Amino acid sequence: MQAKHKIATGAKTDELLKLLEAAGGCLESRIRRIYLEMSPPTIDDNISDYERLRRALDQEGVDASHLHLNILALKKMSRVLREANWKVTVPVFNVGSFTELLDIYPGDVRNTRYGAAVDIGTTTIVVYLVDMTNGHILGTASSYNPQVKCGDDVITRIVYATEKNGLQELQDLAIGSINGMLTELANKNNVAHGMIDYVVAAGNTTMTHLFYGINPQYIREEPYIPVAAFFPLIRGKNVGFKVDPQAIIYTMPNVASYVGGDITAGVLVSQIHKKEEVSLFIDIGTNGEIVLGNRDWLVTAACSAGPAFEGSGIKFGMRAMEGAIEEVEINPATFDVHYRVIGDAKPIGICGSGMIDILAEMYLCGVIDQKGNIREDLGSKRVRRGDSGLEYVLVWRVESAVNKEIVITEVDLDNLIRAKAAIYAGFATLLAQMNLSFGDLDRLYIAGGFGRYIDVERAITIGMLPDLPVDKFVFLGNTSIIGAYYGLMCDRIRHEAEEIAKKMTYIELSVSHSFMDEYMSALFLPHTNIDSFPTVKRELEQRKK
Amino acid sequence: MQAKHKIATGAKTDELLKLLEAAGGCLESRIRRIYLEMSPPTIDDNISDYERLRRALDQEGVDASHLHLNILALKKMSRVLREANWKVTVPVFNVGSFTELLDIYPGDVRNTRYGAAVDIGTTTIVVYLVDMTNGHILGTASSYNPQVKCGDDVITRIVYATEKNGLQELQDLAIGSINGMLTELANKNNVAHGMIDYVVAAGNTTMTHLFYGINPQYIREEPYIPVAAFFPLIRGKNVGFKVDPQAIIYTMPNVASYVGGDITAGVLVSQIHKKEEVSLFIDIGTNGEIVLGNRDWLVTAACSAGPAFEGSGIKFGMRAMEGAIEEVEINPATFDVHYRVIGDAKPIGICGSGMIDILAEMYLCGVIDQKGNIREDLGSKRVRRGDSGLEYVLVWRVESAVNKEIVITEVDLDNLIRAKAAIYAGFATLLAQMNLSFGDLDRLYIAGGFGRYIDVERAITIGMLPDLPVDKFVFLGNTSIIGAYYGLMCDRIRHEAEEIAKKMTYIELSVSHSFMDEYMSALFLPHTNIDSFPTVKRELEQRKK
Repeated sequence: MQAKHKIATGAKTDELLKLLEAAGGCLESRIRRIYLEMSPPTIDDNISDYERLRRALDQEGVDASHLHLNILALKKMSRVLREANWKVTVPVFNVGSFTELLDIYPGDVRNTRYGAAVDIGTTTIVVYLVDMTNGHILGTASSYNPQVKCGDDVITRIVYATEKNGLQELQDLAIGSINGMLTELANKNNVAHGMIDYVVAAGNTTMTHLFYGINPQYIREEPYIPVAAFFPLIRGKNVGFKVDPQAIIYTMPNVASYVGGDITAGVLVSQIHKKEEVSLFIDIGTNGEIVLGNRDWLVTAACSAGPAFEGSGIKFGMRAMEGAIEEVEINPATFDVHYRVIGDAKPIGICGSGMIDILAEMYLCGVIDQKGNIREDLGSKRVRRGDSGLEYVLVWRVESAVNKEIVITEVDLDNLIRAKAAIYAGFATLLAQMNLSFGDLDRLYIAGGFGRYIDVERAITIGMLPDLPVDKFVFLGNTSIIGAYYGLMCDRIRHEAEEIAKKMTYIELSVSHSFMDEYMSALFLPHTNIDSFPTVKRELEQRKK
Repeated sequence: MQAKHKIATGAKTDELLKLLEAAGGCLESRIRRIYLEMSPPTIDDNISDYERLRRALDQEGVDASHLHLNILALKKMSRVLREANWKVTVPVFNVGSFTELLDIYPGDVRNTRYGAAVDIGTTTIVVYLVDMTNGHILGTASSYNPQVKCGDDVITRIVYATEKNGLQELQDLAIGSINGMLTELANKNNVAHGMIDYVVAAGNTTMTHLFYGINPQYIREEPYIPVAAFFPLIRGKNVGFKVDPQAIIYTMPNVASYVGGDITAGVLVSQIHKKEEVSLFIDIGTNGEIVLGNRDWLVTAACSAGPAFEGSGIKFGMRAMEGAIEEVEINPATFDVHYRVIGDAKPIGICGSGMIDILAEMYLCGVIDQKGNIREDLGSKRVRRGDSGLEYVLVWRVESAVNKEIVITEVDLDNLIRAKAAIYAGFATLLAQMNLSFGDLDRLYIAGGFGRYIDVERAITIGMLPDLPVDKFVFLGNTSIIGAYYGLMCDRIRHEAEEIAKKMTYIELSVSHSFMDEYMSALFLPHTNIDSFPTVKRELEQRKK
């Protein structure tokens, strides 16, 4: 059982509602609840319970001519109608002329309607429990994706899924984790699970497949084909969710095998699909997906950055939660480390934004060279040899919450440099594909879970982000969960997400030679070609003086 | 496990297809099978499997904009597509603008499509396995409804259903019986269960509820309300059928608590809803439901005849199958019995048509009086005292297939008279309600499972049928299964059945005083008022001479 904590990037209802409104959204979800009061049957009005319900729906203006009803609701109908004295609430769901009654609840429960937005990250899962009547976020929870134990990235999980009972195990892990958080949030807010009738989740394509228990095998094999990009409607009971068994489960539409619903959600939140200016959107999660475009066109690619900035594969890496070092500064003379910890607690580990700082500071102070190798001859006791080669002590044992030194190792540094190189190479390749250069970009939107914010200058220093004016960068936080929330609350916006997904042209970087070239060039700090990072070059020169 | 036998009323495809055509039907079922050939994905055409399938559907002219797909089909999609080299067949089902893909089969299996028509009788269940491509009946099976052990009639079964696990048990019994017959028929015809994608069943309202596992409790309590008259679409897996799990299960629409889908099916077969002349339709099953009307109006009622004519509650009663005595003649001088047995076999018991003959012959020959009491002083060794009072030996041990005498007892006679009285009282009450008399009837359609035919004159003799010219009577056989077959093969006809059900006005006889009066008057042979049976009166007088 993973520990659960409030995410550092707290969800403030007021902010989200304002964002939703600014994005053209409203509080009109896909499921309506309709309250019906019926007269009890008599010998002169002896139509069946179901026809009585249909008649009442008809009187409420709901077209029940093609009404669909599941066997569970049908089985309990007569009991609920009588126990509730013919006053019931029904959640109604429409697709075209097809109307479905999802369930039947006793009494007037129009105002006790809940939904959940879920971000199924490769590394982290986030859940919002939402009051559907007003969009208020009742609570948020997040946890490591327990699938991590079956593999750090999507590729290893796909391999795992094709073995024995792997697929089922992976699905069970994800659903179990979400259920655990849903239960925690529901209990805390006195919400009955059965009153949650809608769930909108966003995840990358592989995560979405695993979420539904669908074999992701062909995502990995050329020509990289997912089973579905737009998933049909699935019910709560089909994925084993602790919600109304007939709840509608929707996943934000995927674009291709390596650009999923989390990115569609991200574009939705960035609104780049509505702007005239050319924007670049990047979600620095486990994969590192990039979208480039404007209101007329959108291209997208994935650059397999890996989960380093989410804490995976880094000795003291962790998510952005209490105890995580999120800011670091190194004194260039003494090599002493100043750091800030989320929650002002004793440090446990380092989150993404801290890692960017560490890499930048170590480089600028000369603790590491351009390749990320620690200078053994630095003359500081912070440099020492550990189990996995040279390491740098960031926090001494007395200051740490884990009763040992918190260090960054050469292996960590190598992982971070690979991750940042993949991201930068993705940017560069995608721009080149469109015959654009970094100078053509009006805006860069950055999403991801590395912390409450990221220090853009430091991200430029390490060559993860291009050397552009700082005011061109906008940090959006976890756009996957925000986009899922948008889709949950407003059906028009959910539909817009589908239009976005259809509009995006996917470019497969894994078969691109220029991507590999760009990647190799970016495996230096900040880059093989220092001239493409004039600001960094200038700072290095100033520091030398 | 009940023994299963071919029903005597054999289903001849040619006859049924002619009947279907005469009823305005055609071979256009609710589910279409569409064969799709797709080009395999490439790096340049790398849409998901599901979108590829949708695109192929679109090219076949199927509107897939609101395509629905269940999780089972989705889970196997990528495997089936690849194993079948991108050539698959999909069963497609439409409701309004909502299109559902029920399943996905490898290769071109448009021509291996099967369906089942089922008559869920209170006493007998009949199954037809049908080749959906041409309407051919591949095989028929029938068996006693094993629910009989929980009660002979619908009332006792409703009571049973409300106890402990009774509802589940009743459902399991019916489904188990149908599955057994389906398996037998499928094996015999080399049909894979998964290729059966459509089942249309007809049964009375209670049987329909039990079939779905839905509590029928309120059918029995005033004001007699079923859960549903028109059931929503249910899937094969929801009822535990041995068919494609996503197969559409449809039940012919019910009218009210005591007039079910078997009667809607019956009207459909009789076509009285299209005729100008005033007709009376009766289905003499366990209930005895009556429909009166023409193309402008239809009224209906149930008269609780009980299962006597189906063999239940009769010592040697049996269904109309091999070994059943179906015709009986008694020599008025010697009291010897001449009989004809279905299949020209040694007799096992007596089916409905045989019972009518026996009652009529015993009455005409003076073996019994007007009340059905056996004349002990008859002076024939065939009259003797048995375990349940006086009885009449129909078949001596040496002639019988059961190594004992086949007799009819006074208890049997009493049951038969009650059954025929209920039927006649139903006729009379319904006509009176419409201010009509028997003389106003142009045609009487008789359905039911008593035998291959019934001797109308003998049925008039016992006062079950009114004393009208014999050419006004038309015997239709098991209209429940024929109507289910119509609905299975032709969706327009199935829809017509729904219109019929909506059109019928139900009259509740159980609260009618005039019904009770009519019933009491009909507890005599042929009737208290012999003048309403002039033909019988004449024959009795002739015999006396």
